Amino acid sequence: MKFSVMVLGANSAIPTANRFPTSQVLNVNETYYLVDCGEGTQIQLRKNKIKFQRITAIFISHLHGDHYFGLIGLLNTMHLLKREKHLTIVCPEGLKAILQIQFDAGNTTLNYPINFQFITFENGAQAYTDNKITVEILKLNHRINCAGFVFTENKKEPNINKSAVADYQLTTDEIKALKRGDTLNKNGVVLGDNILDVVHTTRKYAYVTDTKKNLKIIPFIENADLLYHEATFLDSEKLLAKKTFHCTTLQAADIANRSKAKQLMIGHYSARYNDLDVLLEETKTSFQNTVLALEGKTYELG
Amino acid sequence: MKFSVMVLGANSAIPTANRFPTSQVLNVNETYYLVDCGEGTQIQLRKNKIKFQRITAIFISHLHGDHYFGLIGLLNTMHLLKREKHLTIVCPEGLKAILQIQFDAGNTTLNYPINFQFITFENGAQAYTDNKITVEILKLNHRINCAGFVFTENKKEPNINKSAVADYQLTTDEIKALKRGDTLNKNGVVLGDNILDVVHTTRKYAYVTDTKKNLKIIPFIENADLLYHEATFLDSEKLLAKKTFHCTTLQAADIANRSKAKQLMIGHYSARYNDLDVLLEETKTSFQNTVLALEGKTYELG
Repeated sequence: MKFSVMVLGANSAIPTANRFPTSQVLNVNETYYLVDCGEGTQIQLRKNKIKFQRITAIFISHLHGDHYFGLIGLLNTMHLLKREKHLTIVCPEGLKAILQIQFDAGNTTLNYPINFQFITFENGAQAYTDNKITVEILKLNHRINCAGFVFTENKKEPNINKSAVADYQLTTDEIKALKRGDTLNKNGVVLGDNILDVVHTTRKYAYVTDTKKNLKIIPFIENADLLYHEATFLDSEKLLAKKTFHCTTLQAADIANRSKAKQLMIGHYSARYNDLDVLLEETKTSFQNTVLALEGKTYELG
Repeated sequence: MKFSVMVLGANSAIPTANRFPTSQVLNVNETYYLVDCGEGTQIQLRKNKIKFQRITAIFISHLHGDHYFGLIGLLNTMHLLKREKHLTIVCPEGLKAILQIQFDAGNTTLNYPINFQFITFENGAQAYTDNKITVEILKLNHRINCAGFVFTENKKEPNINKSAVADYQLTTDEIKALKRGDTLNKNGVVLGDNILDVVHTTRKYAYVTDTKKNLKIIPFIENADLLYHEATFLDSEKLLAKKTFHCTTLQAADIANRSKAKQLMIGHYSARYNDLDVLLEETKTSFQNTVLALEGKTYELG
């Protein structure tokens, strides 16, 4: 099953001429999930030929503009493009009124229903689930309430080998019992794990943006296949990072090390850095398997 | 004195990958006025190297998103860039609450004061004045309250020829009287208009967006040096234009003809047109001196 992250923007609050604020699209077997939605996200979606209407759910980490100012425009365009399918928005509670006042001002009644799921800022709280993924909250440490998200593939029920079903002439009830984990004596042969297909382990993407260094999240992001962690500043700006409730490269790397991430992606770059490689190189001195979040680039999990 | 219009975006509601929604910057002798502010305007300002902080006043025609969704981000960035100078926003009254709810959500108190001037939707109502320009309202005919704007250079007091001041040894009181239009007998010579410098006529820019064809505005936009008029559709889509409260190319041209515009600039293109030249050519069949509003292009007045 496909599980990838495309970066649409990875800058922090001040946009530059050629770098957009935060937004990412997760593609889980052709279902799309949008994570944060800074200004210009819909332009980036178009540039990258992502079909708007395939977005099933949108996750907004917090109500600083560089993470949500593009949402109202995207919702409006979905409406103009005649979306009818419902949309889930996982967000801080205050977002609903912000959207509604703008729909009212424009005399707009959306063609499609929005299902708001308000965030409980508590580590491990379940925020969302569907038939493909489950999403849990991370309580981050920022100037206002801010959530991280852990996206985990759902465990699949193991399948019985097709050939075993034929060989042992298994009934539906027997198949169900085997899937539950029972064993079965069939014509003198003990059947169990030995006739189950291998189930791939579930993959995990942890998204950690806008936070001071926060060790409390570690148990909840352990062994992520990919950890996105903000690294707004170089480590020389540690004091500024602390003051503005952000992280440095080496703090992001430390979280990756402690949580045993398989790979680290850094982002949320301050506009002061024209050359992002300095951020990458510094992070790599502590956590080797690091990549830069770059606009328009897709990162595959596992 | 410089008087020019730079187009930052000229698309209608649905943005395309390479065309932004409506926004323009007027440059009147290096004071900047922003007219509408669709999503991505701050990105376009950066791309075109327009200094944000030189913007003195912002005019928002109406509360459809393609004309104001970029405003909150721009105001926020001005704050982050430490603006202190006050900013005037001429807008429909509802905009203030839309901005405030978002500042509150982000726990943001701006470093600079905003002076809101709410629009009275009445033809010819004065909306704004400073030492360079005066702006009057046009009442347009759209789905929600929508204003056009007429920007006129202020009349300058005529100056007396410097050589005449010396030749006739004019006193301050005599100069004032002459400037008022009095005549004066000085040593047997009648002085009046004959010693005044030529005053350039005041230039006029009329901005007409999002409206059904509306003849009532004509007396208020007459003889514009440049008329920006929306032309969302080709004339073959006349019925759709009427239904959506927009204009076609030939309707824009008719307004330009009737109001004796010196030049017409069309814009607010529907996303359906990849090739804008078809819109331009059709408009020119009725009003020859027409140009397309093109992103990043500057149009000088007079």
